[in-house]
Amino acid sequence: MAPARARGGIDLGGTKIQAVVVDERHTVLGQARSPTPTKGGPADVAAAMAAVMREAAAAAGLEPAALTHVGVGSPGTVDAAQRAVSSAKNLPGWAGSYPLAEQLGEALGTAVALGNDVQVATDAEAALGAGRGYRSMLGVYWGTGVGGGIVLDGRPWLGRGGAGEIGHVVVKVDGAQCPCGRRGCMEAYAGRNALEARARELHDKGEPTELFKIARKRGRERLTSGIWAAALERGDPLATKLVDRAVAMLGAGVASVDNVLDVEVIILGGGLGVRLGQAYADRIAAAMAPHLFFSDRPPPVRVAALGDLGGAVGASLLPPP
Amino acid sequence: MAPARARGGIDLGGTKIQAVVVDERHTVLGQARSPTPTKGGPADVAAAMAAVMREAAAAAGLEPAALTHVGVGSPGTVDAAQRAVSSAKNLPGWAGSYPLAEQLGEALGTAVALGNDVQVATDAEAALGAGRGYRSMLGVYWGTGVGGGIVLDGRPWLGRGGAGEIGHVVVKVDGAQCPCGRRGCMEAYAGRNALEARARELHDKGEPTELFKIARKRGRERLTSGIWAAALERGDPLATKLVDRAVAMLGAGVASVDNVLDVEVIILGGGLGVRLGQAYADRIAAAMAPHLFFSDRPPPVRVAALGDLGGAVGASLLPPP
Repeated sequence: MAPARARGGIDLGGTKIQAVVVDERHTVLGQARSPTPTKGGPADVAAAMAAVMREAAAAAGLEPAALTHVGVGSPGTVDAAQRAVSSAKNLPGWAGSYPLAEQLGEALGTAVALGNDVQVATDAEAALGAGRGYRSMLGVYWGTGVGGGIVLDGRPWLGRGGAGEIGHVVVKVDGAQCPCGRRGCMEAYAGRNALEARARELHDKGEPTELFKIARKRGRERLTSGIWAAALERGDPLATKLVDRAVAMLGAGVASVDNVLDVEVIILGGGLGVRLGQAYADRIAAAMAPHLFFSDRPPPVRVAALGDLGGAVGASLLPPP
Repeated sequence: MAPARARGGIDLGGTKIQAVVVDERHTVLGQARSPTPTKGGPADVAAAMAAVMREAAAAAGLEPAALTHVGVGSPGTVDAAQRAVSSAKNLPGWAGSYPLAEQLGEALGTAVALGNDVQVATDAEAALGAGRGYRSMLGVYWGTGVGGGIVLDGRPWLGRGGAGEIGHVVVKVDGAQCPCGRRGCMEAYAGRNALEARARELHDKGEPTELFKIARKRGRERLTSGIWAAALERGDPLATKLVDRAVAMLGAGVASVDNVLDVEVIILGGGLGVRLGQAYADRIAAAMAPHLFFSDRPPPVRVAALGDLGGAVGASLLPPP
C-alpha cells in the first residue's frame, strides 16, 4: 500500500529536471530525471516537469494526485506569494514571469509549492545532510555558476528574496568579466560557464588541453563537471591552471562571506563541488585560511551529503502552499 | 528627583571614551568624554572609563551606584559570558583577556554588561536612529578601520561572536596590505589608518598635500576625520584621490555584502562616515550600483542618525548582565 503522506520534490536545473517522491521520513520512494528542454518556453518546461514527476510517482507506485503536494526548487526569481517564477535566464524563453505553481498543479492534480533552488538544497543539507546538528551554515553551490544558501539560527535567511548571491561577491575590482555582465565576481573565476569560456579562449590561442577532446569522446557539447574531473585526474595543464585559480578565488570569496556571517559550517555542493569532493573542499578551506579574520577557528568545509538528489529532496521539504 | 531607572552607556574607542546616562526613554540626561589612555594597560583604561562614567552621572545629578546598570561597547573580542575583553589591539597593553565587567562594576558600584562596539552602535541605530522601521540592516562603520554590524529579522546577527567583519571582505585578491596583516581587504583601501599610511607614503615621495599641514595647525599627530574633511573641502589632490579610491572600494565591498545579505537599509556610521555625511553616503551608493546583483532595487544608504553618541547610547541598550 502506498504511504498516506508521500510528497514530491522537483529540482529544476538548467541541464536536467530531477524529481523524487519521498515519505514522511524523507526516504526516497521513487525518482526520475530528464534533460531540461532547451527550446520552447515556460509551458514546455512545465510539461516536462509534470512528465518527470509522473514517472517518479509511478516508480513509487503512486498517482501524482495522491501526493500531499509537490515542492519545486527553481532558478530565477521565485515569487512564492504570487506562485510564479521570473527571470530564469538559463531556461528557454523564461525572461518574464510564469505562473508555474498553478500550471504544474493543474497538470499533476496536486498543490505545488515554489522555492529557490539553491535555498531548498541548503535547507535539505541543514535538515538531513552535512549540515545536520549545526545552527548556522553557508551552502556554496559550485556548478554552472556559484550560488549560495544561508541558514542562520536554524532558519533560512532570504533577505528581501535575493540573499545568498555569493557568486557575485567581488573578489577583484575591475577583474574578469562575469557571465552576469559585471566584473571581478567570484563566479567570473570559478563558475563552470566562466571556466569553459576561458578554457576555450586559451585553447584557441594555442594552450594545450584535453578538455575538448574528452567532451567530444563523450558526445558532449559543454564541459560537464565529469569532464573537468577527468581532465584534472589526467593532470591536464590548462584544466589544472584554471581550477587552481577557481579554488583560490573561492577561498577569497567564501572567506569574505564568512568574515561577515561567521557560520558554524560551510557545505560545498553543486555539480563541480560534489564531483570533485572532499579533497577540493579541503583545498578551498586551505585557500580561505589567509583571508579569514578569525583564522584560529575556521569553519569546517564539508561536501554536501545528499549529492545529486539534494535539490529535489530539499524541494520536497517545502511546506504545502 | 533623579529618574528611578536611569542607566549608563560607555563607548570605549581607540581615541576617546564617551559616556552617557539615559532614562528609560533613552533621553540623554548627562554625558562626558575623555581621551583613551595611550599608555599603561587594561586597568588604566578601566579606571579612565570609571572616571568618565562618574562625570556623566554627575552631569545627570546621579551617583553611578544609582544606575540600574552600565553597558559598555568595546573593541576587541568581547566574551559576554566570561564578562571579559581580549585582543583589543588599539588599546594599550590589551592583547590578553581582562575581566572588564567585574573591575568596572566594582569601581562604579553597579552591574556592567559588555557588548561589541560596532554591534551596539548598530543596535542603537536600528532601535532609535536611521534604521528605525527596518527589519534588516547593515551598519557600515567607516573610521579608523571599517567595521560592520548586522541586524536580521529585527535581531543582531553575531555568528559565533565574530560576525560583521566587513572591513576584511577581500575586494582585490593580492591587493594592498591591510593593517590586519592580510591583503586586499576593503579596510586596506578605506580605513583611516590605511588612508593615513598611504598618504604619508605618497607625500614622502613628493605628492603635494595639505593633509599634514592641517594636522600640524590643529596640533594633531594623526589625520582625524575632521582633517580629511577639511582637505577634501579644499580640493586637496592627494586626499581627493585616496578618498575616491576608498569610496570605490567601499562600493564594491558593501555591495558584495549586500549581495549575500540583501538587507532593507545600509547605515553609514563611523568617524569618517558621520563627518562626511549624506553626500558621501550617496557616493558610496553610486559606487555600489555596478556591483549589485539585484541592481533594480538597491538598498538605501543612510547616515547614522545618532552621530557621535550612537555608540554610548547603543551600549546603554544592553540588557543588564
